[in-house]
Amino acid sequence: GVLKEVIFFPTKVACVEHVFMPAYQCPCLLQHGVETSFARLLRHILSANSTLDLCVFAFSHMDLSRAVLALHARGLVIRVLTDKDYAGITGSQIGLLLKAGICVRSDSGAVHMHHKFALVDGRRVITGSLNWTMTAVQNNKENVMVTEEPDLVTPFVREFQRLWEANDPE
Amino acid sequence: GVLKEVIFFPTKVACVEHVFMPAYQCPCLLQHGVETSFARLLRHILSANSTLDLCVFAFSHMDLSRAVLALHARGLVIRVLTDKDYAGITGSQIGLLLKAGICVRSDSGAVHMHHKFALVDGRRVITGSLNWTMTAVQNNKENVMVTEEPDLVTPFVREFQRLWEANDPE
Ligand SMILES: [Zn+2]
Ligand SMILES: [Zn+2]
Repeated sequence: GVLKEVIFFPTKVACVEHVFMPAYQCPCLLQHGVETSFARLLRHILSANSTLDLCVFAFSHMDLSRAVLALHARGLVIRVLTDKDYAGITGSQIGLLLKAGICVRSDSGAVHMHHKFALVDGRRVITGSLNWTMTAVQNNKENVMVTEEPDLVTPFVREFQRLWEANDPE
Repeated sequence: GVLKEVIFFPTKVACVEHVFMPAYQCPCLLQHGVETSFARLLRHILSANSTLDLCVFAFSHMDLSRAVLALHARGLVIRVLTDKDYAGITGSQIGLLLKAGICVRSDSGAVHMHHKFALVDGRRVITGSLNWTMTAVQNNKENVMVTEEPDLVTPFVREFQRLWEANDPE
């Protein structure tokens, strides 16, 4: 069947190094060999082959920015739409993404651009209550839904395109 | 096919009185006869026949509490799980729900109970980025997904039951 998955947070705390580098024997003190909610989320993001469109209110989690930067280094086309007020906050990863040459736009129209969704290759949506922050991943009760159901993905693809064009700085 | 719908916000501003009372000729100054995002959300909530399980971080929107109170008055079984910190905030509708005799539990374990989902009759999930507040509905860029796909609904039913039991005050 078509991919339909729901992931709940907070995640168990465990090392996610194997998600980035499967062959690496990590010497860190966290637990290894555990597939956590956060590892599953990372795998869905890293499954991208051509594009990643990201529309997130808050983005401060360093492993999530590592994932986005890894996709960028692989040559994928990445577009990031974020909230104008949150982008400048301490710990925000947006500056790092910009510095790496990733295309970022800030939503200036709404009180808050409060979405938290990602589109993988334009055909898989990752969406829910989870902001891309440490607190959300490790402390909060949160949900993330991942699906390739066209009836659910297509509206997000259209909304991303609409918001992306509406926030063209030129 | 199975219900699969995505609703985006902010909503257009228009009267939603017809959602509550179809036959009533509303004299208010807002636009009438328009089916807005917010009207669609209300209709999904009001479609409940037997139960409504609600798991929301912030609940201050008066029309949303009107909908929940209407279901309660119809005799439906309602359970509300909310964030311990938000429940006491100015404008919160939680006190009103309690006063009406609706069963409410506050999550005391997490830094934040950050979910924003509702289960209609245990078989339709309404979930997304949208808190049940005026700002979210009228000002923010937000999304709400509504589906009856069992693979997506069942995990939310289980998570609600788990959180509900975990926050039993007795
Ligand atoms: Zn490690
Ligand atoms: Zn009216």
